Amino acid sequence: MVILRNIVDRPIFTRVVMFLIIVNAILVGFESYPAVFEAYFSWIQGLDRILLWAFTIEILLRLLSSRPLYSFFKNGWNIFDFIIIVSGHLFVGTAFITVLRILRVLRILRTISILPSLRRIVTALLMTLPSLGNIALLLSILFYIFAVTGTMLYGTVMPEYFGSLHTTLLTLFQIITLEAWASGVMRPLLELAPWSWIYFVLFILFGTFIVLNLIIGVIVTNLDKANGSIDEEQTLSADEQLASLRSEIAELKQMMKQMADQKSNH
Amino acid sequence: MVILRNIVDRPIFTRVVMFLIIVNAILVGFESYPAVFEAYFSWIQGLDRILLWAFTIEILLRLLSSRPLYSFFKNGWNIFDFIIIVSGHLFVGTAFITVLRILRVLRILRTISILPSLRRIVTALLMTLPSLGNIALLLSILFYIFAVTGTMLYGTVMPEYFGSLHTTLLTLFQIITLEAWASGVMRPLLELAPWSWIYFVLFILFGTFIVLNLIIGVIVTNLDKANGSIDEEQTLSADEQLASLRSEIAELKQMMKQMADQKSNH
Amino acid sequence: MVILRNIVDRPIFTRVVMFLIIVNAILVGFESYPAVFEAYFSWIQGLDRILLWAFTIEILLRLLSSRPLYSFFKNGWNIFDFIIIVSGHLFVGTAFITVLRILRVLRILRTISILPSLRRIVTALLMTLPSLGNIALLLSILFYIFAVTGTMLYGTVMPEYFGSLHTTLLTLFQIITLEAWASGVMRPLLELAPWSWIYFVLFILFGTFIVLNLIIGVIVTNLDKANGSIDEEQTLSADEQLASLRSEIAELKQMMKQMADQKSNH
Amino acid sequence: MVILRNIVDRPIFTRVVMFLIIVNAILVGFESYPAVFEAYFSWIQGLDRILLWAFTIEILLRLLSSRPLYSFFKNGWNIFDFIIIVSGHLFVGTAFITVLRILRVLRILRTISILPSLRRIVTALLMTLPSLGNIALLLSILFYIFAVTGTMLYGTVMPEYFGSLHTTLLTLFQIITLEAWASGVMRPLLELAPWSWIYFVLFILFGTFIVLNLIIGVIVTNLDKANGSIDEEQTLSADEQLASLRSEIAELKQMMKQMADQKSNH
Repeated sequence: MVILRNIVDRPIFTRVVMFLIIVNAILVGFESYPAVFEAYFSWIQGLDRILLWAFTIEILLRLLSSRPLYSFFKNGWNIFDFIIIVSGHLFVGTAFITVLRILRVLRILRTISILPSLRRIVTALLMTLPSLGNIALLLSILFYIFAVTGTMLYGTVMPEYFGSLHTTLLTLFQIITLEAWASGVMRPLLELAPWSWIYFVLFILFGTFIVLNLIIGVIVTNLDKANGSIDEEQTLSADEQLASLRSEIAELKQMMKQMADQKSNH
Repeated sequence: MVILRNIVDRPIFTRVVMFLIIVNAILVGFESYPAVFEAYFSWIQGLDRILLWAFTIEILLRLLSSRPLYSFFKNGWNIFDFIIIVSGHLFVGTAFITVLRILRVLRILRTISILPSLRRIVTALLMTLPSLGNIALLLSILFYIFAVTGTMLYGTVMPEYFGSLHTTLLTLFQIITLEAWASGVMRPLLELAPWSWIYFVLFILFGTFIVLNLIIGVIVTNLDKANGSIDEEQTLSADEQLASLRSEIAELKQMMKQMADQKSNH
Repeated sequence: MVILRNIVDRPIFTRVVMFLIIVNAILVGFESYPAVFEAYFSWIQGLDRILLWAFTIEILLRLLSSRPLYSFFKNGWNIFDFIIIVSGHLFVGTAFITVLRILRVLRILRTISILPSLRRIVTALLMTLPSLGNIALLLSILFYIFAVTGTMLYGTVMPEYFGSLHTTLLTLFQIITLEAWASGVMRPLLELAPWSWIYFVLFILFGTFIVLNLIIGVIVTNLDKANGSIDEEQTLSADEQLASLRSEIAELKQMMKQMADQKSNH
Repeated sequence: MVILRNIVDRPIFTRVVMFLIIVNAILVGFESYPAVFEAYFSWIQGLDRILLWAFTIEILLRLLSSRPLYSFFKNGWNIFDFIIIVSGHLFVGTAFITVLRILRVLRILRTISILPSLRRIVTALLMTLPSLGNIALLLSILFYIFAVTGTMLYGTVMPEYFGSLHTTLLTLFQIITLEAWASGVMRPLLELAPWSWIYFVLFILFGTFIVLNLIIGVIVTNLDKANGSIDEEQTLSADEQLASLRSEIAELKQMMKQMADQKSNH
């Protein structure tokens, strides 16, 4: 087991896995050209089999080198790697060829779990999400209220965009990205419902204001993190200096007291 | 009355109200599908009646538990809740079915008044607005000047977009979101009024610059708030430490003086 | 002259001028509706004459109350007010009705010169511009190079968008706002010049990156101003405290020396 | 050689080169108008020859004044200048007229290498790039995964946008700029593949979130640089003050010890 640990911890191990992921990425790239896919179908399938088994061996090595075994599954990235590879085996030979191909594409995401610098940045990105919870909830409420109102008011007038709740939600998503909100959606509707501009202007004003605050939330969280680490260090050193100053003054006082005591004893 | 206060302050009370709001939200969601609406019309109406009365009881309980009674109306959120519910009763049985349905949808907004974390964030968002007053006034002046000029210059050439003052204002709102400003508005106009590009380029340059400063205003206000609280704390502790240092030095001086006095008396 | 100064400095003077500006704004608003304009033409013209003379008297009062007279023209806002009003008189009775009407609209801009808070914010906005000079120069070079190249490569293929240097500059301005750059400009061109995507992708990458840094420049300048004033204050108070501490320690030392001297004399 | 150095270092030298670059810029501007180009072809070609030789002399002067000679090529901007001019000579008389004309346009970029303030800002812009490496890698992975998946799923349904890997990559670039992503790409596809909205919404959510973090990365790097220099200075002065305070307290202690020693000796 110690031998396994040694193999897994070597830089060459990571490099080989990284190389296999790149080969896998190039393979799925070629596969997306129909002409190549049909001409070299058996070759692609063969290489894919080899890659799948190589990844399986890699996961097994990493799993077996973990002490205790179940500690392997405590890491979210390991679980992700495990599921991607195991489902690769499960769907082999079945009719779900599209699922299999998407699984092969998703293996490229393993780059993140293999490269520590990428893993760190993704973890950092995911860490900013919880602090946005409340703003995201507010945005959801705004979307839901405008979706229900929009379906109610314009559902029969313009069913293509407001026909049902989910259609309207998609339209609102398009509107918040400001894509063709006027030329594509509002202008044609304006001829049928002349007051509908209130609906659009209100949604854009509220929506972009909330999204802006969501973005500012991400910026503030990032700047706080950056400043936090600097400030902490600086404050610490200033505190330490003040503390040392204070202890020296305390020593001075102590010396004074001794002098006064000596005098009175004298 | 104390009993009422006890009921209202319990977490279970908030949870029940929250549950009713979610039921209300799901109900208006289903209602927006015409097929569901027609098939289950009486059911929906019945459930809606029950919900309305449940909310009425909730508001009455909260109102009656307030000491003195009118203090209930000092809170903006309470007034909002009250109006939403009371108008629900007023419009029942009238022909304003659309108004009633919109009122039902607006009840979802009560989530904000019920959940303290959401209420806090909305209050924070509203607080950033006053500091933007001047920039918003500047933006209004820009909009008004360009609306009057645009209507004057292109009103007869392109009445669909510049026909009257309010049409032009809507067009300017579309232009500032940069939606189809060139492909939809400027390019067709360019063939009729070859110098109109000056109008558009000027409005986009001025408009986006002011909007950018509006956004920066929101960012600066947010960062100031975030930094302000940290700095204050830090400065306070540094100040406190310096103050304690100073008092210790004052003590030292006092001791010195006493020693000198003793000596001269000696 | 002192009497004039008294009149001009009274708040009621500013309020009356502000009221006249609002009346002027409403007037030009009504004027933009052709039906109103034709029906009340003589009324509008009459009211406009009155307003013009009221503004003229205001400017004259402000000019005459200045000591010395020419100091009035040292303020940019005063020059702006003066030109707007004087040209109003110059064009009266001439055939340049559109120029006259635009002058009337521009009088709304006088709000900025009348309200100190708006004047301050506009000055602040203008102050951020010089620090952006270099980035703006870089953006101009980028625009010029891509304009010349675009006209050279696609001028004959797509004359509507790349026909001449100024047409291409307008197209590039449209592309940098990301408006219909793909659906309106690139996709149709792609069928005639299959490699043209390199031109668009390069311009968008370089352009948005430079514009982003221009925006960041504005943000940094704003934040620096905001932080600068806070930091200075804070540092000052910390410095003052440290200085007072030091002077107290110096006093202590002085007392020590005196004690030592007394002892040795003793 | 010292004489050469004197010539090159004089401000007049830079000004002459800057003047030549501006003449070159105006020349390529005129050249882009086909009518002008054909009418004055020989004039333009003649002036261009003169400019090319003037630049050649300038580069030679700068090269020869470098001590040692090869130190000239240690500066990236010098290499850029050298390549632009040398290739200008290489392509003269060949059939690559378009290449020659683009080279002439690129000479405008020499403004950056001539003006120190522009050179500094471009260097600063380039310096922010390395810190964005990881986020850019993440964005590339996202693009590649969605490009392969998109080609796989919609390649046969909508070959215009998803026909092959590179077509899909261009479409994804268009989608991330939010240009016509719904009106131009998703809405038409929705009729053929009703679930395709998941693909677009996911890509926009992930894509804009990563791009947002890329932009924040640039902002943070910029603010850090700006704050870093201020903080360092400030901390230093506070540290120095604390250090001087401490040394004074140490002196005090020393004096105390001497006094105590004198007393005990006494």
